[in-house]
Amino acid sequence: MKGKICVAFSGGLDTSIILKWLIDEGYEVVAFTADVGQEEDFDAIREKALKLGAVKAEVVDLRREFVEELCFPAIACNAIYENVYLLGTSLARPVIARAQIDVAKREGCFAVSHGCTGKGNDQVRFELAFYALQPDIKVIAPWRDPVFYERFAGRNDLLSYAAEKGIPVTSTKAKPWSMDENLAHCSYEAGILEDPNVTPPEDMWKLTQSPLTAPDQPEDFTIHFEKGYPVKLEYTEAGKPKVVTDAVELFLTANAIARRNGVGRIDIVENRFIGIKSRGCYETPGLTCLRAAHVDLEGLVMDREVRALRDQFVTFNYSKILYNGLYFSPEREFLEDSIKSSQKSVNGVVRCRAYKGSFAVLGRYSETEKLYDMSESSMDEIGDFAPTETTGFIGVSAIRLKKYGQMKQAAGEKM
Amino acid sequence: MKGKICVAFSGGLDTSIILKWLIDEGYEVVAFTADVGQEEDFDAIREKALKLGAVKAEVVDLRREFVEELCFPAIACNAIYENVYLLGTSLARPVIARAQIDVAKREGCFAVSHGCTGKGNDQVRFELAFYALQPDIKVIAPWRDPVFYERFAGRNDLLSYAAEKGIPVTSTKAKPWSMDENLAHCSYEAGILEDPNVTPPEDMWKLTQSPLTAPDQPEDFTIHFEKGYPVKLEYTEAGKPKVVTDAVELFLTANAIARRNGVGRIDIVENRFIGIKSRGCYETPGLTCLRAAHVDLEGLVMDREVRALRDQFVTFNYSKILYNGLYFSPEREFLEDSIKSSQKSVNGVVRCRAYKGSFAVLGRYSETEKLYDMSESSMDEIGDFAPTETTGFIGVSAIRLKKYGQMKQAAGEKM
Amino acid sequence: MKGKICVAFSGGLDTSIILKWLIDEGYEVVAFTADVGQEEDFDAIREKALKLGAVKAEVVDLRREFVEELCFPAIACNAIYENVYLLGTSLARPVIARAQIDVAKREGCFAVSHGCTGKGNDQVRFELAFYALQPDIKVIAPWRDPVFYERFAGRNDLLSYAAEKGIPVTSTKAKPWSMDENLAHCSYEAGILEDPNVTPPEDMWKLTQSPLTAPDQPEDFTIHFEKGYPVKLEYTEAGKPKVVTDAVELFLTANAIARRNGVGRIDIVENRFIGIKSRGCYETPGLTCLRAAHVDLEGLVMDREVRALRDQFVTFNYSKILYNGLYFSPEREFLEDSIKSSQKSVNGVVRCRAYKGSFAVLGRYSETEKLYDMSESSMDEIGDFAPTETTGFIGVSAIRLKKYGQMKQAAGEKM
Amino acid sequence: MKGKICVAFSGGLDTSIILKWLIDEGYEVVAFTADVGQEEDFDAIREKALKLGAVKAEVVDLRREFVEELCFPAIACNAIYENVYLLGTSLARPVIARAQIDVAKREGCFAVSHGCTGKGNDQVRFELAFYALQPDIKVIAPWRDPVFYERFAGRNDLLSYAAEKGIPVTSTKAKPWSMDENLAHCSYEAGILEDPNVTPPEDMWKLTQSPLTAPDQPEDFTIHFEKGYPVKLEYTEAGKPKVVTDAVELFLTANAIARRNGVGRIDIVENRFIGIKSRGCYETPGLTCLRAAHVDLEGLVMDREVRALRDQFVTFNYSKILYNGLYFSPEREFLEDSIKSSQKSVNGVVRCRAYKGSFAVLGRYSETEKLYDMSESSMDEIGDFAPTETTGFIGVSAIRLKKYGQMKQAAGEKM
Repeated sequence: MKGKICVAFSGGLDTSIILKWLIDEGYEVVAFTADVGQEEDFDAIREKALKLGAVKAEVVDLRREFVEELCFPAIACNAIYENVYLLGTSLARPVIARAQIDVAKREGCFAVSHGCTGKGNDQVRFELAFYALQPDIKVIAPWRDPVFYERFAGRNDLLSYAAEKGIPVTSTKAKPWSMDENLAHCSYEAGILEDPNVTPPEDMWKLTQSPLTAPDQPEDFTIHFEKGYPVKLEYTEAGKPKVVTDAVELFLTANAIARRNGVGRIDIVENRFIGIKSRGCYETPGLTCLRAAHVDLEGLVMDREVRALRDQFVTFNYSKILYNGLYFSPEREFLEDSIKSSQKSVNGVVRCRAYKGSFAVLGRYSETEKLYDMSESSMDEIGDFAPTETTGFIGVSAIRLKKYGQMKQAAGEKM
Repeated sequence: MKGKICVAFSGGLDTSIILKWLIDEGYEVVAFTADVGQEEDFDAIREKALKLGAVKAEVVDLRREFVEELCFPAIACNAIYENVYLLGTSLARPVIARAQIDVAKREGCFAVSHGCTGKGNDQVRFELAFYALQPDIKVIAPWRDPVFYERFAGRNDLLSYAAEKGIPVTSTKAKPWSMDENLAHCSYEAGILEDPNVTPPEDMWKLTQSPLTAPDQPEDFTIHFEKGYPVKLEYTEAGKPKVVTDAVELFLTANAIARRNGVGRIDIVENRFIGIKSRGCYETPGLTCLRAAHVDLEGLVMDREVRALRDQFVTFNYSKILYNGLYFSPEREFLEDSIKSSQKSVNGVVRCRAYKGSFAVLGRYSETEKLYDMSESSMDEIGDFAPTETTGFIGVSAIRLKKYGQMKQAAGEKM
Repeated sequence: MKGKICVAFSGGLDTSIILKWLIDEGYEVVAFTADVGQEEDFDAIREKALKLGAVKAEVVDLRREFVEELCFPAIACNAIYENVYLLGTSLARPVIARAQIDVAKREGCFAVSHGCTGKGNDQVRFELAFYALQPDIKVIAPWRDPVFYERFAGRNDLLSYAAEKGIPVTSTKAKPWSMDENLAHCSYEAGILEDPNVTPPEDMWKLTQSPLTAPDQPEDFTIHFEKGYPVKLEYTEAGKPKVVTDAVELFLTANAIARRNGVGRIDIVENRFIGIKSRGCYETPGLTCLRAAHVDLEGLVMDREVRALRDQFVTFNYSKILYNGLYFSPEREFLEDSIKSSQKSVNGVVRCRAYKGSFAVLGRYSETEKLYDMSESSMDEIGDFAPTETTGFIGVSAIRLKKYGQMKQAAGEKM
Repeated sequence: MKGKICVAFSGGLDTSIILKWLIDEGYEVVAFTADVGQEEDFDAIREKALKLGAVKAEVVDLRREFVEELCFPAIACNAIYENVYLLGTSLARPVIARAQIDVAKREGCFAVSHGCTGKGNDQVRFELAFYALQPDIKVIAPWRDPVFYERFAGRNDLLSYAAEKGIPVTSTKAKPWSMDENLAHCSYEAGILEDPNVTPPEDMWKLTQSPLTAPDQPEDFTIHFEKGYPVKLEYTEAGKPKVVTDAVELFLTANAIARRNGVGRIDIVENRFIGIKSRGCYETPGLTCLRAAHVDLEGLVMDREVRALRDQFVTFNYSKILYNGLYFSPEREFLEDSIKSSQKSVNGVVRCRAYKGSFAVLGRYSETEKLYDMSESSMDEIGDFAPTETTGFIGVSAIRLKKYGQMKQAAGEKM
């Protein structure tokens, strides 16, 4: 025996091959499957792992910590990568990696293994997490091991090995793209999507209704936030008002509303951590709505300068750090402290609408926060300050610009 | 005679009163009206000004410079304020202020006057521009002059003065909000909108079809960019392919498509320059599509690091500068040089769709830019680099994190 | 009686005149004097205020809160304005303003008054603090009141008023510059310094020995930091080792060492908040050493990425906020949370040298922090990672650059 | 023959061994030596290379392009890494790498080789440059090749190989640190310096006089800048005024002045690109003075906001990019455009003093730039704007803070 390895096992073709191959190579294998909300038959996966020869097969339900520890902070800082991508895949990686290391430790494994390819972001995200969490762990990445990837150069090699080893294959025909699903999103990339000018076929999208076939009536709902986190969602079902407050349930409800109304699809060309551009299509239904509502509420309750600092530094960097797999790092802890500090006043309620692919805000209010002051902002009331003061404000603000204007005039330059 | 003033004149009630009042105060008045694409009868405005006693009435067509000098750079840097607002009002102010100063100089005016209120952003934007462009200009702001604003404390005072002076008033009943329109957008604020929880009535929106009543069929169109600027728009009209390339025509066409499909409405609480929070509703149809298409194209053709620097520094600051009325400033010139430098490679084509309030990208390509490489990003091809190299990349990237992880472990802290 | 005012009173000519003038104007006056470590006879000041007619005269010792609440956080984030200025004046303003408001409240004053001129930073710093701390306070700024400043147009007007009112004047001849002193620094500006090409005369500098006449032997000392704050200073006096740990005493000791060795003089042209450039000369002896030692220690114990974020984001903005008088603001609270979060690991010891105007680090160590690893950084040991990994690291880091190089080559452009 | 390699050859022990070893391995070797201003006998180096078996030995004088293309832009943006390090080594790498690639191309080499260790920054800097400049080049890094580094595990292995192969060794005893020298600086690291608490011995410093033994009289000199670059240096030699204007000569003169006065030594623990902390001591005499003078001049002539953007965005990132070896990259080109844009007004003269380890500014002026205005900044003149305007400026700036203060008061929280 070469030792015990904890292998990430999804039940699909690739990780089934990997699991079997590692056993053939002389390792003892513990199968690890993360339940981050993807639609799967986890009992069947567990059973399959054991049948393939795993000494143990663990399925760990990570949905709650995924929502509470990752999705909610992402909402609280409006996380977004390259202006468009809501980081659905990246958000799940830290909880998966941490759970896999926990299983590895508990089971006495000297190594962990994953089925990520050698060109993607996920290998980096998983491994940086592994190394931070357990600095002396060994990582086995078959898709970067020439012995493995030269043997399994194409799908046919995988299928024939599966046939030879009696590994059950659910569908003989793979989809012409690869997918990754969790509670927050589903991603599609590779295959026919590699041409960035190919419009994805309608039947690719798994989580959301097409905007074109979504209901003709808009659906309204209300989200309550406390310290930047969603804490209550009010909506209507079969004409009756409903309320959810549990984090996971709330997230699932937001998903359900957005999914049936076709909200949350995007299609981008992004820059991977390793420096390659790649095209990805993503469905992020509930998170799209929760994040947009949060952005809106901040307008009402957050100080302008705190927001500006947060936008320029925290949002940008937290998103980049998540994307690049640096969750378990001192800089993430530092930025997360900043997020908490920035969200003290983000308490209030946003009334929302989903309709045929779009999300809109209908109104917002806060019982506790008072930075917005109707009479102060009113053009019809003089309020607390004298309009004449603005003359001085402008006059002083103009000192520097007048000087510059004089210089330009003296130089005969036009502005 | 106290001297000659160039007065911003929209033809509406406020600026009619101001114009007349200034004449009564003993000034000679030149009326200045900017055509930035708002829907108005400019001949009638000119005539009205002269009838009210202006010695001259000038209407200046600023549409081309507005589109080319302001809207296009804004697209090129994805300008956005507080995550949501596309700066429609702010974008028009610099060209208006510059034209008013030009008229003032040509006509020998010692002062300029405007009808902005004393609590808003526009007074600041106009006046900072005036002072930078003509440092010794005097500014007369009646709404900040106690003599004026105490006399005209309510709308009734304005109406009775109008009646007394024979100033024609088009409608006796004002809308319960104030509006500002130009080629790029229409804004709505104040009045009933001051309660941020009041959903604006459907009949408020002037420029765009409601998403709910927009066509049931999506409308597809294609935008070509060169150095970050839109240069060609292809669309279909009555079943026939059409092409526009002229900047103004292109912008108007983007507007038309977005307007009929209900794209570009937003509703936010924002932070004014003077430190007051205020609620604004905005319609920015064409600009919303052009900006979103531009963001998309950058994913395909722009270097990751240039984009990251541009996102964090240029986009944020250029937007803030525009919002705060600091267009005629050294920092705007500095940032605009950066925008140009960043857009050298932003050449390509984006296929777009508008549908019932939402905008989507269908695909994109570039004939000239080659940073995206299908085979390189492909998960199925080994390509130019060895997967084993990634092991080293991760290993070295993990050095710092392992050290941190060891420290945490030694300290017994969990990550 | 027009009511009671709390007047900032330094005992000098200007504030004596202001105090007397306000009494003449019919106000009841409470004199407020802050002891922030400047060299003054505070008993004499108190007596003088009462003699001039103040109903009460309070001297408040703010030295400890100045050091602990302002100077130490400034050290902890390496605060610096425009690359050079250590913010000595700005740092004292918040504690002074807060104490003055406290006295004003306690004594039932409806207003506060200060003697700042109308073109400087200090008026802004004091008043923004007053308004944040007590939003309904009234501020009386005689140097911005035409009645006052037209009456007292020159120094002679002040002197003749003093003579007339029996106000004792200590020196008949003013220095040809103005000064501001506190525990952390002394500033010099205006007068002959207004020509930025005039080298300040040697006898201007009050706090520090000239580097040219400072001791010929260097002086070594050792600073201990905990969570970014200095907690212990070891030095030698008359050949004997000494240790100070009390915050104020430590700061004063650092001052004494730096003063006798001529450390901490600077001379700059800076940009005031109101947009005017001005020339200032500053002596900041102890703070210069404490800050430099802190910067050095961070190299040893702070994570690279946390430091980079802090440098770019916290240091710059915290310094700007302090300079502009925005201490009592949500953004300062936000940034101070970030400082705390960044300094958890800044624990260690720096050995320092002061010599004829320069400060140098002789060495540093930390008992608790382990990010620095001698064997890891050693070029002579293979250590924990394989050199071959770096090949992969470079290879992957080069993917993006190779692509760019290929594009440049194809375009025939030279790099 | 395995093909032709262009080998970086310093004439020292390591690269002599590498050169010989590569010939033994069957390669044809072209020796490349960069003259970046280090003190060396280049004829002897060339001769040694040929004697060791190189088919060609090229020494390329890169001093001018090093000063003009690297050092001057670094001065123009005040480049600095981690608050302290002036990037002396990093600055030379791009010109060396470019010249080596040029030689490699000209001589038909398929590969380049260098003698950098496997843990440092320089391997990364050279190789990223090689790959960007010539994407299909092969790189041979013996110190990362196990065959090589296992054979030459210690200095004795190198010495015995040298003896065996008849490689002349200049000194039998190596210094207990490693050095890198060029026109801008000399660096010291490794060996006894690896303990960050060891003060470097005085005889380590090669370029600068000790501050303790430097002249007792200060030395004054004057630097003229145009568009941010130094263009003239005036100083005194043997009592006679001297002037230099040629870029290289000017840089060498600044070096000479700083060297004899002990200016430019630093000692830091820094963070290498690969994530290891390491201790370095650096002497950067002339560059320290030129950079400090440039920083000073910017205060006089540069707009506040352009400077703030440049400080936060360009200086930080340009420095990081240089440090990490990303000179040949789109982001460096982007930032260099920004530097140029920011320096249009940086024209003027700085009077400087060097004395026993410290640099000071005595005064500065500009004939052409007028943003500084003596009468405007004067506290004694009313000037162009009314002091009463500042009241409005403060009043409006306080609106946001008053609101915050009210909230805090209502919540019973102290500020």
